[in-house]
Amino acid sequence: MKDLEFSFELIAQDEKARVGRISTHRGMVDTPAFMPVGTLGTVKGIFTDDLLSTGSQIILGNTYHLMIRPGTEVLDLFGGLHNYMNWQKPILTDSGGFQIMSLAKLNKIDVDIGAVFSSHLDGKKFVLSPEKSIQIQKSINSDIMMVLDECPALTNDKEKLIKAIDISSNWARRCKIEFGKNKKKGLFGIVQGGLDKNLRLDSLEKLIKIDFDGYAMGGLAVGETQAEMFNILNSVVDYMPKNKPRYLMGVGTPSDMLGAVKSGIDMFDCVIPTRSGRTGLAFTWEGKLNLRNAKYQKDKSPLDKDVTLCGLNTYSKSYLNHLIKSNEILASMLISIHNVNFYQQFMVEIRRSIKEGNFDNFYNNYIKKF
Amino acid sequence: MKDLEFSFELIAQDEKARVGRISTHRGMVDTPAFMPVGTLGTVKGIFTDDLLSTGSQIILGNTYHLMIRPGTEVLDLFGGLHNYMNWQKPILTDSGGFQIMSLAKLNKIDVDIGAVFSSHLDGKKFVLSPEKSIQIQKSINSDIMMVLDECPALTNDKEKLIKAIDISSNWARRCKIEFGKNKKKGLFGIVQGGLDKNLRLDSLEKLIKIDFDGYAMGGLAVGETQAEMFNILNSVVDYMPKNKPRYLMGVGTPSDMLGAVKSGIDMFDCVIPTRSGRTGLAFTWEGKLNLRNAKYQKDKSPLDKDVTLCGLNTYSKSYLNHLIKSNEILASMLISIHNVNFYQQFMVEIRRSIKEGNFDNFYNNYIKKF
Repeated sequence: MKDLEFSFELIAQDEKARVGRISTHRGMVDTPAFMPVGTLGTVKGIFTDDLLSTGSQIILGNTYHLMIRPGTEVLDLFGGLHNYMNWQKPILTDSGGFQIMSLAKLNKIDVDIGAVFSSHLDGKKFVLSPEKSIQIQKSINSDIMMVLDECPALTNDKEKLIKAIDISSNWARRCKIEFGKNKKKGLFGIVQGGLDKNLRLDSLEKLIKIDFDGYAMGGLAVGETQAEMFNILNSVVDYMPKNKPRYLMGVGTPSDMLGAVKSGIDMFDCVIPTRSGRTGLAFTWEGKLNLRNAKYQKDKSPLDKDVTLCGLNTYSKSYLNHLIKSNEILASMLISIHNVNFYQQFMVEIRRSIKEGNFDNFYNNYIKKF
Repeated sequence: MKDLEFSFELIAQDEKARVGRISTHRGMVDTPAFMPVGTLGTVKGIFTDDLLSTGSQIILGNTYHLMIRPGTEVLDLFGGLHNYMNWQKPILTDSGGFQIMSLAKLNKIDVDIGAVFSSHLDGKKFVLSPEKSIQIQKSINSDIMMVLDECPALTNDKEKLIKAIDISSNWARRCKIEFGKNKKKGLFGIVQGGLDKNLRLDSLEKLIKIDFDGYAMGGLAVGETQAEMFNILNSVVDYMPKNKPRYLMGVGTPSDMLGAVKSGIDMFDCVIPTRSGRTGLAFTWEGKLNLRNAKYQKDKSPLDKDVTLCGLNTYSKSYLNHLIKSNEILASMLISIHNVNFYQQFMVEIRRSIKEGNFDNFYNNYIKKF
């Protein structure tokens, strides 16, 4: 187990929907997989032991955030993020590209130098090159690394999209070189090209030539409609290598994931379960519940009578309504762990339905509820 | 056990310091006891299961806060706070008096009517009479109830203090009548009188005549120095009935508790462990540590290598420093549970040292550290 090489095995398929398994020396990841987001080395509001109990097999860390805080010097001292945060299962890291575009004050993108930007915290200047991004991800010691890409805001401007693909392809090649030979870890390429099928296929082709351990769809869930996203996934995912994991970055709601799985996606990450946990929105088999709603004030029923984790089935909606209205930390704690647990149960049922050749039924049952 | 009457047993004494045991039908409370504060039906940032694991045997609920949110209608629906918040061990409730003076917009104190005030949340008008306070505490279904008292701000104005004692004594009598006969629960009187020994003894005498199940020192930890507080405790506590629990309300730091135990106090409640948990201040056997301090940035040691609860001994000070600087919820969760656990361990050691006739040594060792 300790010496396991990074690999992916396809186990079952139901039309385009796939069940697979990623192996790493830190553990297996059953796909379709949902990765809770641990932006700053913590999945917000959740103890790592409880996170394990949700069945989460992999989490995501953000290179941009972790390079600023705590920084690579501290991460190196601990031999990476696993020991630092007490999470010994696999970690995937993004490259920092998306946050540089969305969060930092971006000064310049130069294909040779990289991205020059100022921290959103204190304005401190950073340069992130493809090489630097991989070096930081090595300090984080993540098990799956992502290439640095230029991730443009939602646009139909073909010239902008082509330029982003050019830069991203160049950077992807340099990331692969910097990553080097390491069979224990995986490096994923990121397909760009906006909502344009031909540009997406062009980007994908360039990445396949470089040869990655997995391929991600980037630049989605950035403001387009769900129909637009499903449309581009349906036209592109089928061309992604079948023997490699396919990852849809930053997605999403349960219905987003249903549609993406239907087109053949294997991996997801999203802050929705924990962010919603902090605002009082619970995901359940009955759909989304806004626990701030006055109608729950005297509701003695739990969110899910079958979930014993953290005693969740012993807390009433009435109590959760009270906690969330009172801005109590316990509200975030309880609803966040509930939501992550629901997401993982949702993935279990997706995998089961695919194995049973029944995914269409599952899809039709739940696409309306979310 | 279910039918156990409320009672107090004195077990050991070392000079004035006492070890005892309160029995209730919901469980025993070893004294000197520290009661974590669950203002709004949650000890902030801590799962009740973890709270149990700290050895906490009783918690405090705030009548003022709970009457406003969630309100007695909801509490009645659940048969009280224990079921509502999933805490089946004893609960003590204050009377609301202190918060009305300190938090609400107070309109009027009338000995016959009670306290007329507006909620600090939405300005809604409430009247809290001695009878009403006990009725609300009955809705909360607390195991130890406190009488409604007038708790004046720190003052040397004798006239004000005498008037507060007069009103409080009148209210105490009416609370006792409203409480009625209930051997399963306890009702405590509250001694007022500021820093004036004679007024305190006068207040105490009036309460003893009414006859309560325990006696509290109120109106301390309201801005006086620690020396002033210790001084009044040393001159008054000895006169409090020996066969009843003695409770110092709203106190305090570990050193406050050491001094109070030395004068014969048995019970404490305070928000310090959880409030400090949210600001990054940790209580340890080495003293107080401000985890925001840059010197912890690369400190790989845990707060206490022997505390396995919530995996606390696996988190470094470096990681806690990172979390607290990043305003992560997990910082509050980890440091709050650490602090409450430390407070409970501190009480265990206080009780052990008294039983061993060694309290003075313990006192001298730790009074300097805090």
